[in-house]
Amino acid sequence: MAERVYLYDTTLRDGTQGEGISLSVEDKLKIVRKLDELGIDYIEGGWPGSNPKDMAFFEAVKNVNLSHAKITAFGSTRRPGIAAADDANLKKILESGAQTVAIFGKTWDFHVTEALQTTLDENLFMISESVQFLKGNGLEVIFDAEHFFDGFKRNPDYALKTLQAAAAAGADCVTLCDTNGGSLPHEIEAIVREVASHLLVPIGIHCHNDGELAVANTLAAVRAGARHVQGTINGYGERCGNANLISVIPNLQLKLGYDCIPEEHLNTLTSISNYVHEVANQVPPSHQPFVGKSAFAHKGGIHVSAVLKHPETYEHIPPESVGNRRRVLVSELSGQSNVLYKAKEWNYDFDKHRNRSREIINTIKEKEHQGYQYEAAEASLELLVKQAVGELKDYFTLDHFKVFVEKTGSETLTTEAVIKLLVNGQVVHTAAEGNGPVNALDHALRKALEEFFPIIKNMYLSDYKVRVLDEADATASKVRVLIESSDGKEKWSTIGVSTNIIEASWYALIDSVRYYFMKHEDALKDCPAYQLHTVKS
Amino acid sequence: MAERVYLYDTTLRDGTQGEGISLSVEDKLKIVRKLDELGIDYIEGGWPGSNPKDMAFFEAVKNVNLSHAKITAFGSTRRPGIAAADDANLKKILESGAQTVAIFGKTWDFHVTEALQTTLDENLFMISESVQFLKGNGLEVIFDAEHFFDGFKRNPDYALKTLQAAAAAGADCVTLCDTNGGSLPHEIEAIVREVASHLLVPIGIHCHNDGELAVANTLAAVRAGARHVQGTINGYGERCGNANLISVIPNLQLKLGYDCIPEEHLNTLTSISNYVHEVANQVPPSHQPFVGKSAFAHKGGIHVSAVLKHPETYEHIPPESVGNRRRVLVSELSGQSNVLYKAKEWNYDFDKHRNRSREIINTIKEKEHQGYQYEAAEASLELLVKQAVGELKDYFTLDHFKVFVEKTGSETLTTEAVIKLLVNGQVVHTAAEGNGPVNALDHALRKALEEFFPIIKNMYLSDYKVRVLDEADATASKVRVLIESSDGKEKWSTIGVSTNIIEASWYALIDSVRYYFMKHEDALKDCPAYQLHTVKS
Repeated sequence: MAERVYLYDTTLRDGTQGEGISLSVEDKLKIVRKLDELGIDYIEGGWPGSNPKDMAFFEAVKNVNLSHAKITAFGSTRRPGIAAADDANLKKILESGAQTVAIFGKTWDFHVTEALQTTLDENLFMISESVQFLKGNGLEVIFDAEHFFDGFKRNPDYALKTLQAAAAAGADCVTLCDTNGGSLPHEIEAIVREVASHLLVPIGIHCHNDGELAVANTLAAVRAGARHVQGTINGYGERCGNANLISVIPNLQLKLGYDCIPEEHLNTLTSISNYVHEVANQVPPSHQPFVGKSAFAHKGGIHVSAVLKHPETYEHIPPESVGNRRRVLVSELSGQSNVLYKAKEWNYDFDKHRNRSREIINTIKEKEHQGYQYEAAEASLELLVKQAVGELKDYFTLDHFKVFVEKTGSETLTTEAVIKLLVNGQVVHTAAEGNGPVNALDHALRKALEEFFPIIKNMYLSDYKVRVLDEADATASKVRVLIESSDGKEKWSTIGVSTNIIEASWYALIDSVRYYFMKHEDALKDCPAYQLHTVKS
Repeated sequence: MAERVYLYDTTLRDGTQGEGISLSVEDKLKIVRKLDELGIDYIEGGWPGSNPKDMAFFEAVKNVNLSHAKITAFGSTRRPGIAAADDANLKKILESGAQTVAIFGKTWDFHVTEALQTTLDENLFMISESVQFLKGNGLEVIFDAEHFFDGFKRNPDYALKTLQAAAAAGADCVTLCDTNGGSLPHEIEAIVREVASHLLVPIGIHCHNDGELAVANTLAAVRAGARHVQGTINGYGERCGNANLISVIPNLQLKLGYDCIPEEHLNTLTSISNYVHEVANQVPPSHQPFVGKSAFAHKGGIHVSAVLKHPETYEHIPPESVGNRRRVLVSELSGQSNVLYKAKEWNYDFDKHRNRSREIINTIKEKEHQGYQYEAAEASLELLVKQAVGELKDYFTLDHFKVFVEKTGSETLTTEAVIKLLVNGQVVHTAAEGNGPVNALDHALRKALEEFFPIIKNMYLSDYKVRVLDEADATASKVRVLIESSDGKEKWSTIGVSTNIIEASWYALIDSVRYYFMKHEDALKDCPAYQLHTVKS
């Protein structure tokens, strides 16, 4: 039977200290539901005493039905020189209604005398009386030992005394915090082992990533006896972030054999990581370990041919075990085998066109040189391949479009697009407005095509990304536009590159439409445009 | 005297296997110069046998004057069943002119029989004969033991034999590779220690980041005796990347006391990291340890007041030691003290306006709610503060602008902007073309202002970034534009938010100009516009 390690998530509190991370109460509730489904044991919701938004969260979360997780409030030990029962922050914790609380206290003597400006003894009383007060009110209490490793290195006796004060007062767990994130794994392991020999209460670990070592430090602590692990989803957090639970969990469970979350939930890690990135409005780093888009992507020709034979030759775990998938990338380093792999995925009879695959690779290389990147736009790549083998239809031809943006000093803004297309020899000429130039162009294009291809109403743009290439040239440099489209079931991505953002967007827009039409040949048969075409030919 | 650890950079080879990383020969040469300045011992330039671009690099790098680094070629052991002297790849290595070579060979028995499809004995001959051949031709030879840790766990005897074959043949170093990136620090440490007890030749380490442990694994290997460390700048590399030298170096040198690069070069790490991100066209992750923009950024009110008193309370190393700097962030979590800190930085007499600072924080919160983020646009923030205290001048007023983009099916594209401004009651009405709509607007604005403020010629846009907020709404959602400007000495960043990219760009553009004018009041005195103003009043 695997030994249990308890997981404590602080995405909603420490995570939101990260630069660029901001979560509304509604966002936090969404994340709570996902973390509960995953099997996280404790979810730290915020610091009720610090701001009204956190208090609002604790009110709102009472209405969320949780199957497993305990909502936890964060706070600090009482202020110096007053009774715990009179401390406004501790009272707010009781008011929050949370059944578990993590209170942090000082363990580094320097912080006690310099930051708190109180005596070492008073700090011990602050810890024990705060823990007693909260326990006396029926709460489960975790003591977060702030700056523990830095404090222990300088004054081990005092640092230990703070833990003992918390334990003696009834704390259910003492969590050792590497607050400044600068400790090394061998230091963490030695200190946790030493602490464990002095305490009976369960030990927790809370690491920051300032040395790019937060995951390793967390594993080192568990190896030394910690059984409670704090971290955040995707490693969000102040400065360089907190220990990334998305990496800690599979390392602990798949590699070290601990029991953290139900086995059958491990394969939801990728979708939960992406979900939280989305709610926090962060671009998921493609290289993120375990769950990133590139985590099981193979680019080099040698790797690709080997991994297809025996996945374990170049994969440390099966991608599916964490809900990720293997990808084969087509790029300038690729051999022909990568394109053949893709072609197989698309069910193309590439053997018929084998001589063309070298030619296609050259076209891809040329396009990549211009700034195209098909790794993120497989629909555009598929169109390119289909075109090369002569299997792509011309659905419509552009005569011209014009886009107008006008702004006056009094803040009114007009955006309009005019478009003229040829569909099977018929002219369609129309116009539309929009919130911005690309939105107006998108509206005009759809308006022009709707008459001939009513199925276009079933698809919509679900994501739009812009990247400036060669940023040194600023507004005169090339831009790469990536568009994600959806019909509510499938999603597909297309790309456009130009020095002009409108033109780049246009290329991605028409690829998006052409791809949808290509994939729905059957439905096209009921469209007026198809009838025209059939009659004509 | 600190013990020496040698650094081997593979950004140009393994780094370019990373998804989205592509470097031209010219890019590679730029990076080589920087790595040489930093004090890297070995720079792996590529695999001469694999593609013409890598061969072109080795030709071109011969003309680069290096002060310290050795350019290294990468390759593999000879193919099975032929003489080393007949192997095309090994011959290409000699042709490359590199004086050092790293050749990889198989050490995992399964790979020998399954991937190479040869015998275990032949593989040993392949290793020793390839090393001998290269040594015989006068090269320094590093043997890269591919999949060493996975191989050693399954068949330690055979894995060791491969190393012994390389060592006996004269290899100058054997580098143990965690090719699949799945090993844990304690495993790495134990295996390196075991290997070190069997070999006299120096041991190297090459880690991948699939478990988010590459830096920790590298440190573990050095602690166990490795004295040659392979990695890439910023951790670029296939899948989840390679060990990040930018983090490995300060950990080894500042924390473990090894000697890697000249002490006085450590403070160039931040600029080198950013330089390589720029050349590789990657957005520098703000949370990157040691060198990221957020690495020493303080957001929480408590942290800010403590860190100002005693930096060591919340900083694991002095930011300047790696060329980074402390930042205090202004955001919705901030207390008034953060704004006061900023104001001090800008030399404003904020005590005079102390009652306004709450008001300013509310304005900032309101703007952030709309999508503004001042963390990355301090110039816009300074304008906002200066405006709030009534110290900002109106340099010009917009009557209106219009932007036109026209594209015909025959691929011609016209982009034009018309602008009408009021400067001190005088009307200026002009037009300009551009590569794209924002570029045209930028040209028109500068053209309109040049007559009145000739100093505008000294500034230019150095970076332009677009981010789509709330991506679910695609092209109808808000966009955030960040503009970086420069006058060749200083750089400053401004921001604009709107559903219309042209409008968002306009806000960022005019902030950029207003900021420059505000900072150069003295020079403005010589401008016609200033004279007009003075005469009028």
